[in-house]
Amino acid sequence: MARQQRGIRTRRTILEAAGAVFDEHGYAATTIAMVLERAEVTKGALYFHFPSKESLARAVLAERPPLETVPVRPCKLQEMVDVTFVLACRLLDDPLLKGGVRLAVDQCAPQSVDHAGLFRRWADHLTWLLRQAREQGELLPSVDPRETVEMLVGSLAGIQLMSRALTERADLAHRVAVMWSHVLPSIAVPGLLPRIDAASDRGSRVTEDLG
Amino acid sequence: MARQQRGIRTRRTILEAAGAVFDEHGYAATTIAMVLERAEVTKGALYFHFPSKESLARAVLAERPPLETVPVRPCKLQEMVDVTFVLACRLLDDPLLKGGVRLAVDQCAPQSVDHAGLFRRWADHLTWLLRQAREQGELLPSVDPRETVEMLVGSLAGIQLMSRALTERADLAHRVAVMWSHVLPSIAVPGLLPRIDAASDRGSRVTEDLG
Repeated sequence: MARQQRGIRTRRTILEAAGAVFDEHGYAATTIAMVLERAEVTKGALYFHFPSKESLARAVLAERPPLETVPVRPCKLQEMVDVTFVLACRLLDDPLLKGGVRLAVDQCAPQSVDHAGLFRRWADHLTWLLRQAREQGELLPSVDPRETVEMLVGSLAGIQLMSRALTERADLAHRVAVMWSHVLPSIAVPGLLPRIDAASDRGSRVTEDLG
Repeated sequence: MARQQRGIRTRRTILEAAGAVFDEHGYAATTIAMVLERAEVTKGALYFHFPSKESLARAVLAERPPLETVPVRPCKLQEMVDVTFVLACRLLDDPLLKGGVRLAVDQCAPQSVDHAGLFRRWADHLTWLLRQAREQGELLPSVDPRETVEMLVGSLAGIQLMSRALTERADLAHRVAVMWSHVLPSIAVPGLLPRIDAASDRGSRVTEDLG
């Protein structure tokens, strides 16, 4: 059992190192040697868990994103807003998430690593929330949940890329707040709008509450 | 003179070939040999114009984007919408633009190629239009032109990336129309809104009019 747990811990160490290296260098420029050096594990341990660079990329992308850790809210639009702000917060210091997002927007990664999968999973989760919002009467009748979510996911992908290029994501939460201030009035019924908190410090407040 | 014109034509051939190769393979995986093969020019001709891969990337990114070719409109918001739809159209078949956009979102490109420069130029042009829209009373008082434009440019960067990954950009015009339908009501004064044409075939109609 102790041995198995050591295995799980080693796998995690390797994955986090791979996430950090992919984040910094992208798919094409990353080598197994760079991940080995970062993870400080033996070559044998790494190849036991991951036979190739591709399998490392796939595992980083398959990592469960922190969507489910956001508290359930009675208002589903608020929950969706919270998910995006918590992601923006975690993108500052979670190596696995950073690596996953980098790979997801990395057009150099081979098709076999399914780099669009991460976006698909996020889009699925947000669509599920938006459909609940519809059932609860939170949405304007013009909203098509899937279409709105794909627009949001695409926009967020580009906004974080721009924020990373310009400020190493220091202004990401602000940029997400600007996006919501432009988009929420076209999604939420007017009565709900003033009650949704989409200020740029929303993510840090929700994260704090999570402890 | 004939010789000088031949030089200009050769430079253009090389640039378009480089755009196509950067678009398909990204910065890291592109080699001078690939550009040579695509351009069908001599090694001497290529190195005469571009001493390195970096200088090729810089020239592709420095290419004047087709922003200025969009007809001037009395309504500046309409002109801004037109610019985005024409860009979406050209992204289907203009190798230089495709290469430039790919490099702009390519996080593998070295700092020295200033890949954020392309976005900055587009943002400057759109901000200039939005400031004119403000002077003409087209904007809601809540709009901060620069902030709105940076949100739009970031969003469009991500939306085209997603559209490329999912459909080779076949649905890009539709995705741009979805974005505008969510964002315009937060930008335009209500009276103007129904008069702005942001349907997904807007780009092909404007391009047709241009001949």
